[in-house]
Amino acid sequence: MFFASDNSGPVPQAVLDTLAEANQGHVMGYGADPMMDEVRQRIRDLFEAPDAAVHLTATGTSANALALATLVEPFDTVFCSPVAHIEEDECSAPEFFTGGAKLTLVPGSDRMSVEGLTQAIESQGNRGVHGPRRGAVSITQVTEMGNVYSLDHLKALCDVAKSYDLPVHLDGARFANAIMALGCSSAEMTWKAGVDVAVFGGTKNGLMGVEAVVFFDPGKAWEFELRRKRGGHLFSKHRYLSAQMAAYLRDDLWRDLARRANTKAARLLEGIRTRSDVQVVNEVNANMIFFLAPRTLHQALKAGGATYAVSGDVTNGPADGMLRGRLVCDWSIPDAEIDRFVSLLHGA
Amino acid sequence: MFFASDNSGPVPQAVLDTLAEANQGHVMGYGADPMMDEVRQRIRDLFEAPDAAVHLTATGTSANALALATLVEPFDTVFCSPVAHIEEDECSAPEFFTGGAKLTLVPGSDRMSVEGLTQAIESQGNRGVHGPRRGAVSITQVTEMGNVYSLDHLKALCDVAKSYDLPVHLDGARFANAIMALGCSSAEMTWKAGVDVAVFGGTKNGLMGVEAVVFFDPGKAWEFELRRKRGGHLFSKHRYLSAQMAAYLRDDLWRDLARRANTKAARLLEGIRTRSDVQVVNEVNANMIFFLAPRTLHQALKAGGATYAVSGDVTNGPADGMLRGRLVCDWSIPDAEIDRFVSLLHGA
Amino acid sequence: MFFASDNSGPVPQAVLDTLAEANQGHVMGYGADPMMDEVRQRIRDLFEAPDAAVHLTATGTSANALALATLVEPFDTVFCSPVAHIEEDECSAPEFFTGGAKLTLVPGSDRMSVEGLTQAIESQGNRGVHGPRRGAVSITQVTEMGNVYSLDHLKALCDVAKSYDLPVHLDGARFANAIMALGCSSAEMTWKAGVDVAVFGGTKNGLMGVEAVVFFDPGKAWEFELRRKRGGHLFSKHRYLSAQMAAYLRDDLWRDLARRANTKAARLLEGIRTRSDVQVVNEVNANMIFFLAPRTLHQALKAGGATYAVSGDVTNGPADGMLRGRLVCDWSIPDAEIDRFVSLLHGA
Amino acid sequence: MFFASDNSGPVPQAVLDTLAEANQGHVMGYGADPMMDEVRQRIRDLFEAPDAAVHLTATGTSANALALATLVEPFDTVFCSPVAHIEEDECSAPEFFTGGAKLTLVPGSDRMSVEGLTQAIESQGNRGVHGPRRGAVSITQVTEMGNVYSLDHLKALCDVAKSYDLPVHLDGARFANAIMALGCSSAEMTWKAGVDVAVFGGTKNGLMGVEAVVFFDPGKAWEFELRRKRGGHLFSKHRYLSAQMAAYLRDDLWRDLARRANTKAARLLEGIRTRSDVQVVNEVNANMIFFLAPRTLHQALKAGGATYAVSGDVTNGPADGMLRGRLVCDWSIPDAEIDRFVSLLHGA
Repeated sequence: MFFASDNSGPVPQAVLDTLAEANQGHVMGYGADPMMDEVRQRIRDLFEAPDAAVHLTATGTSANALALATLVEPFDTVFCSPVAHIEEDECSAPEFFTGGAKLTLVPGSDRMSVEGLTQAIESQGNRGVHGPRRGAVSITQVTEMGNVYSLDHLKALCDVAKSYDLPVHLDGARFANAIMALGCSSAEMTWKAGVDVAVFGGTKNGLMGVEAVVFFDPGKAWEFELRRKRGGHLFSKHRYLSAQMAAYLRDDLWRDLARRANTKAARLLEGIRTRSDVQVVNEVNANMIFFLAPRTLHQALKAGGATYAVSGDVTNGPADGMLRGRLVCDWSIPDAEIDRFVSLLHGA
Repeated sequence: MFFASDNSGPVPQAVLDTLAEANQGHVMGYGADPMMDEVRQRIRDLFEAPDAAVHLTATGTSANALALATLVEPFDTVFCSPVAHIEEDECSAPEFFTGGAKLTLVPGSDRMSVEGLTQAIESQGNRGVHGPRRGAVSITQVTEMGNVYSLDHLKALCDVAKSYDLPVHLDGARFANAIMALGCSSAEMTWKAGVDVAVFGGTKNGLMGVEAVVFFDPGKAWEFELRRKRGGHLFSKHRYLSAQMAAYLRDDLWRDLARRANTKAARLLEGIRTRSDVQVVNEVNANMIFFLAPRTLHQALKAGGATYAVSGDVTNGPADGMLRGRLVCDWSIPDAEIDRFVSLLHGA
Repeated sequence: MFFASDNSGPVPQAVLDTLAEANQGHVMGYGADPMMDEVRQRIRDLFEAPDAAVHLTATGTSANALALATLVEPFDTVFCSPVAHIEEDECSAPEFFTGGAKLTLVPGSDRMSVEGLTQAIESQGNRGVHGPRRGAVSITQVTEMGNVYSLDHLKALCDVAKSYDLPVHLDGARFANAIMALGCSSAEMTWKAGVDVAVFGGTKNGLMGVEAVVFFDPGKAWEFELRRKRGGHLFSKHRYLSAQMAAYLRDDLWRDLARRANTKAARLLEGIRTRSDVQVVNEVNANMIFFLAPRTLHQALKAGGATYAVSGDVTNGPADGMLRGRLVCDWSIPDAEIDRFVSLLHGA
Repeated sequence: MFFASDNSGPVPQAVLDTLAEANQGHVMGYGADPMMDEVRQRIRDLFEAPDAAVHLTATGTSANALALATLVEPFDTVFCSPVAHIEEDECSAPEFFTGGAKLTLVPGSDRMSVEGLTQAIESQGNRGVHGPRRGAVSITQVTEMGNVYSLDHLKALCDVAKSYDLPVHLDGARFANAIMALGCSSAEMTWKAGVDVAVFGGTKNGLMGVEAVVFFDPGKAWEFELRRKRGGHLFSKHRYLSAQMAAYLRDDLWRDLARRANTKAARLLEGIRTRSDVQVVNEVNANMIFFLAPRTLHQALKAGGATYAVSGDVTNGPADGMLRGRLVCDWSIPDAEIDRFVSLLHGA
């Protein structure tokens, strides 16, 4: 019953198979491998963006931080939500890669509002040399709280950014889960909405560790390449990144994996909702469920063998204290495990 | 006939098999996977260093730059050879990760001399706040020119560093090839000689992309971990790094692969030496051969299908102009390819 | 009627005289001038800190940023108020000098509360390598909103910091104004309360541009000196910084100047308070007054020749819209100007 | 007999007078003071560059490092001589301000040769993402070894830079001394030769601490302003920088001071040349003399009260060991002191 993260499950056999396929003979390194040509073409087709620059890195943090460093100057600030991965979970990688740019947190929830973003931008760029310059807007889709921006919402945020001439970065660690939830195209969720650079995540959706950074305007791509090498993120044996991403793109595997994860989360949600002292706090459009439950219930779930994250101290405190739990379904979690968890919950 | 680099060949089947072995069920991420426990223990045993801190990264550049950033301050300088990988081939990653520390190049060849290193240190640390502070010494073994420091030489350089209280970093991208060339233990080539932090390279010796950074004094290891995360180099699905390194360490695979590569280079060398207008310029202790040959000979080799690096313009220039070529043997290059190359050379 | 800032007035004659006094013959540079010996001794005496390390820089931003860079690592975070100068008015100098450390804003007002600081620290240091490490606490005295922390408040904040082993930085751009407001000693407001590094500001209190950075534990002072040089903040003709600071310290000029500024602010405050539609929003313990007044009143004051800062648009908007103004008195503002301003206010 | 540096003498009375002139009433800070308008206009006139952007900083290191940071990216390299101030005397400030750019040292002497510069550029920009990108060329005039580039030499170096599309930075810490030595205009020594950004130094030529950074193409000036603030180098009470520079420019004081310094160096040189065991090693076009002399002679000079820099150990070593001394004349050194030094030399 492992619901702690979508970075904890195995990769599908197709990924291993494509690694084996790529593991033949000698090929050029550093991205000049033939399989990267396939990947580049497939991603351009997928995004309906024939000129896009496509580069791979092995971690989401590097993909985000390198993309932002390419977009902004050290004296700029990046607008994001207070729970953005770039703010909370990257040990200040954006500050490091940008050379000390700031993150300005847009007050409110995980989904920035148009008003909140506008006010944050207004408040931050009026101090001349005394404050940072406005740099970029960073949006996470699926958000860190399990919510999915609608296309209209996304477009409205990008419109705000554009009205200030700011580029937009999309942290798409769970890009695939959002696409399946929205039922839209990859182009619609990115450049058609106004996104300039998208991270097309693979790691949380079944790969060992690969993210594609897609620049819809390829003008800054050379700078990205220099920053990637300088950041130690250019793989000499690049084919093993290419192979994972090729497997992901072939036969729409990426969509299939995300569909599975989302479907499993829906099954889990259905099982949870029927218990009256459990309150689901996100709108659950993809593969994550955030829920409030009494401490004793968390204790029973943990004792029964469920693994998931809880904000706060499960062991000590009032029995009826409400604590927030996070359940994440990856593509591989067996339905039987979900059902066991639901049974455990109802038996507690 | 691919002799361009040891990062261009495939990985042995054992690596794929161990990846498949690791690909079971859900495990904790970020280095808390069980296979990392095995790796940590095996490396400590290998280095006879029960307290060593052991961390993995996926690229040599990140391993070097993160190790150096942990050792030195931004106002320090690192002493290294003029052809060091950290100087020539990392797009200034050390400057980036250290926050702007300098590299001071020790005049001379790829193998720093005791006198050269001493003079460089003397010349650099006597300007108070006006110049950089002395920070660390970085040694590459096997060097970028294919030479191997003897244990005595290594120890003498470390002694110089120690006499100035400077820590020593060993760039061991080809650690295994050096070990096989010297016939010594991993402890002898590192902490017993005076090395403080060693990069135990796997990528150039048959892995997809894994290096182990070994701190013999674990005191600074927590800082390394923060810097690794902040640098985007901490893998969430860490087991796929662990698995590669586990395969490498089991059954002495790492030694076996290096032995093969070195043996193949010896075979190639034997075939080259007999041609009088070819001059081998390194002492060839491991898996690389640097050689001078007339332009026309390079042209013939290239035309015949050989792939390898040449410094200078092969196409244009005097026929008898001597150009330097670099031949690298990886573990997988077939003997038949070597023999074909030698035949081509002699037929040219 | 210039109340825009305390960085806009002239310096007292004594400063010019001491510059002339210092302007004799040849002396060693970079802080080895004899007048710096006097300054060092006077500051150590003033702070009752015979071992303190004392260094000068020419700007408040450099003093703060260099001090913080000496205290924290790039992977750390600094706790400060949301309106701290280091957050709002230094164009991200702390991020630059520290190599990308974060600032964590303690929710609440310009004076951090013990609870707010504790919660901010608690919330920020529990994510292992994923979030920044706790680095330091930075306190501004007088605050950017014109308030003065009591000694008890200051001590309580330092106690919180100490309970987490965090060093405390005091931004004392208006150190002198706070001392005169509290009527305490410089030792009491710094190391006796728990401050580790204090910026003893001179620029806003009558000097051309000099701040003293005082390390009560001199252990990190050498690092500060390297960072100062590297930051371009070490003056070759250092005597002209020393001379300003010497003038400031001789005959308690610094106290005299601050007393004047505070007295003038009190006179101004007395004149303002009697108008019913004006609301003073800070507690006015030193030389700054923040007040809310209707837009029409601000318009009348500006039209009448008063120069001061207003948050918001004075020209456009509802007549009775309340806007916040800031009035700063420096030592040199003539009483007649204050009285003119008060008359203008009451005549409007 | 103080010949240690041109940063050790007093400032002329005119500087003190202009500071007093500026010290009237309240003025806006941060460069919006009226005297800065005068300075800006005078410098534009002086350089025959009506569109030039002109900014002041208080130190040469900040002027150089901020200018370079504006010109290059963190993944670039700057070409300079091995004895450049930016390499040897700034504690890696260029690396700090640029975010980790490299300096590539052009082999040879203090005056880079056209061939040397060309080869250095050629050798550094051909490794794609593996090495740094070519960034800028930095030239020091007067050089750190006391030599002056001819206009033709300067132009030839700039032509090399231009042929690679690289901007040129001129470190003009001793700009005035060079102008007087060459007898050319400020325009001829800068933009007419191909310089893009010039540091017009005042500190070494009689000011307390002011340098003007002149961008002939003002396009990047806003970035410079943000970097200056962020670097802590924007003075709130900016008028005291403006005043120094205004005094410097009025009545050609800057030329007068440099003429004096150069004339004094010529007088000193004349006195030195007649002693046969002294060998002058620079071509002495401005205000510095580098000379070789036996250790015993240095000992006698030091014993006699002369203060100047010597490379090496004056006290210990063979009596006839030749050591290099550096004599610098500033505008204020009395002729009598020069004559005393010469007498001492000849009496030794």
